[in-house]
Amino acid sequence: MKTELPDVQAYMRQIGAAARKAGRQLARAHAAAKNQALLATAAAIRREAQALQRANALDLANAQAAGQDAAFVDRLRLTDKVIESMAEGLEQIVALPDPVGEMSELRFRPSGIQVGKMRVPLGVVGIIYESRPNVTIDAAGLCIKSGNATILRGGSEAVHSNQALAQLIQEGLRSAGLPFDAVQVVETTDRAAVGHLIADTEHVDVIIPRGGKSLTSRIASEAKVPVIKHLDGICHVYVDREADLDKAVVVADNAKTQRYSPCNTMETLLVHEQVAAALLPRLGRIYADKGVEMRGCAATLAILRQAGLPAVAATDEDWATEYLAPILSIRIVEGLDAAMDHIARYGSQHTEAIITENHSHAMRFLREVDSSSVMINASTRFADGFEYGLGAEIGISTNKLHARGPVGLEGLTSQKWVVFGNGQVRT
Amino acid sequence: MKTELPDVQAYMRQIGAAARKAGRQLARAHAAAKNQALLATAAAIRREAQALQRANALDLANAQAAGQDAAFVDRLRLTDKVIESMAEGLEQIVALPDPVGEMSELRFRPSGIQVGKMRVPLGVVGIIYESRPNVTIDAAGLCIKSGNATILRGGSEAVHSNQALAQLIQEGLRSAGLPFDAVQVVETTDRAAVGHLIADTEHVDVIIPRGGKSLTSRIASEAKVPVIKHLDGICHVYVDREADLDKAVVVADNAKTQRYSPCNTMETLLVHEQVAAALLPRLGRIYADKGVEMRGCAATLAILRQAGLPAVAATDEDWATEYLAPILSIRIVEGLDAAMDHIARYGSQHTEAIITENHSHAMRFLREVDSSSVMINASTRFADGFEYGLGAEIGISTNKLHARGPVGLEGLTSQKWVVFGNGQVRT
Repeated sequence: MKTELPDVQAYMRQIGAAARKAGRQLARAHAAAKNQALLATAAAIRREAQALQRANALDLANAQAAGQDAAFVDRLRLTDKVIESMAEGLEQIVALPDPVGEMSELRFRPSGIQVGKMRVPLGVVGIIYESRPNVTIDAAGLCIKSGNATILRGGSEAVHSNQALAQLIQEGLRSAGLPFDAVQVVETTDRAAVGHLIADTEHVDVIIPRGGKSLTSRIASEAKVPVIKHLDGICHVYVDREADLDKAVVVADNAKTQRYSPCNTMETLLVHEQVAAALLPRLGRIYADKGVEMRGCAATLAILRQAGLPAVAATDEDWATEYLAPILSIRIVEGLDAAMDHIARYGSQHTEAIITENHSHAMRFLREVDSSSVMINASTRFADGFEYGLGAEIGISTNKLHARGPVGLEGLTSQKWVVFGNGQVRT
Repeated sequence: MKTELPDVQAYMRQIGAAARKAGRQLARAHAAAKNQALLATAAAIRREAQALQRANALDLANAQAAGQDAAFVDRLRLTDKVIESMAEGLEQIVALPDPVGEMSELRFRPSGIQVGKMRVPLGVVGIIYESRPNVTIDAAGLCIKSGNATILRGGSEAVHSNQALAQLIQEGLRSAGLPFDAVQVVETTDRAAVGHLIADTEHVDVIIPRGGKSLTSRIASEAKVPVIKHLDGICHVYVDREADLDKAVVVADNAKTQRYSPCNTMETLLVHEQVAAALLPRLGRIYADKGVEMRGCAATLAILRQAGLPAVAATDEDWATEYLAPILSIRIVEGLDAAMDHIARYGSQHTEAIITENHSHAMRFLREVDSSSVMINASTRFADGFEYGLGAEIGISTNKLHARGPVGLEGLTSQKWVVFGNGQVRT
């Protein structure tokens, strides 16, 4: 295992150049070959489960020796279940249609040329992630299917696991006649490698960080290569005056409590002042029973305390905080405009939902809220590649350009223009 | 006219904050209001033609006093014809469909939610351009129609003209009930203003530079805000072994000589070795008669000189040069793969064309050449927003992410996800 290199920059440039070359080959590969590579990799993962777990054991031992906590070690562990789910994930990607080469909107122009668009891979995708080794397989699978070469830089704690997984992917690529360096795992744990990767605009077309906010914001501020990312998921549910309160209770419960750690979990509940007295005691009881700490505006506190429910005062910082925990901020607002103003000021442009039976309010919210996902009468927890029908996702983007929201195969491609002519010239 | 400011950064942040606020209002404006603003601006441009020319005269006098050459002064001049074409350009944008709010691909999912996409403005667009004041109107018109606020930073030589034009746009916005600072012209000629603009990720969503390569590459390397751009237009035409040589002559003539300065003009002609002897003397005669200097590989030189045509040896640098002038590099290649290798090595991913009657060759070229526009049997000069049916273009992109090729109204928007539910939650 190489962990120190005399010249990290030269090593990273060599990886980049190999990826660029392999990417050109992968871009023109047909669906059958790409699917064959994914199926062969899935088979190899199942066949080599024990070898993977032996490699993983080295990482686990190092993590324990380094004093990492149990949650960290759990994320790192390649259990039988994780290994099977990696193989199944690849099989699910096989079942998705190949986006590459799709032509659309081919229209004849007055000049006689026919102009349209063709979907094409981005080229070389750099993925920078933390300790979970299954990302190696998920990310490689999506990139292979979308015709992109991949450079994977996982956490140094997972380096043995990631290397073992990369060998199986490369075996899969070889068996399908595809260039094995279409997927490369960075072997050095030298942190300078990331700096070189995110600056190499010659060989890398996009960087996708998968990890916590500190990783992502550091990459976003230093990268020269474009970054597909989201920083925060401060998601809102707004319960309108004309909400069906039964739906509001069910959705607001689910949006907060179905899981606490995902980025699409609600962090702030906004409630119209005319329904707050009817809604908040019902909902507050559910949250209290589930151990969710409620932090409210003054009006919220008055209602909750009158109902005998525990609550603390929210500060301005609460409105701007992604808790990722059983904590919820609650604010009572005057109406739709005040709710949208709050979202514009404190939101992270990730996912927001309105609960209302009023069509005009629903459509105004849908149109005017500038988030990557905007929902009517549905839980923010649906903002997810599987739930949206993308088959899988490589991340969620709150960028304005290119892909917004869950990024699947299509978000790993772009469209070029194609022109069919018969000797036409411009006059 | 403010040309020096005590605090350029504060001034630019103030412009950015006003643009962000106005952008939010413009994003929800309906087509009727946006069209009204454009029509009122067009009427004001015609009505105030003389006032515009008086403001322009100040810029022209300064440019002449500064010793600018005649071509520069010409680009700066607001003639009657330029003024009328600005007004007509706005009317053409009015006639285009409003892209904002368009919903597509709304499909029901097994969970019961209906998921699709809605087209939305990018937010705030910064345009940095050189001396031609008509860009002020073209860019503002496209941004207004696509619901984006705009910050315009033109060349300091055109500052009086641009200010006068901006006042008419703001008059048009006001008359339609839209926020007048949805279009702002940077009033200071302090160069630090550009640096602040391209770093202000809080208030600016995308930068579009319109000007020469040195301007664009400086902005691209320094910007923190994403940049929609192209640096070079080293466009290729490849004449295949199975080309119809009559079409090849007509297209290769047009691609080079219809105009020399645009970015979509051919700079390198690649010719299959088996048709070079038949093609190059015919084509070389046309180029020679039009005064195009030919720079060829050794095999090209032999054929041209045998035909009594002037040619000089091409260097490796020629293959990588965008001449923007009556100069053409010519290389004889072994076939389709060699042509595509040459394009991958020396091209700028702008626009390439193949001339062939062979379907398989045509489709391989179309799929495998990684340029923003790829053409079969058509002149590279077609790579243009008007020719593609976009109605107008704000620039051409060779980026991999987001818009590639000519960027029109659609390229000034992106898509968010919309979800229609009826109380659904995630299980």
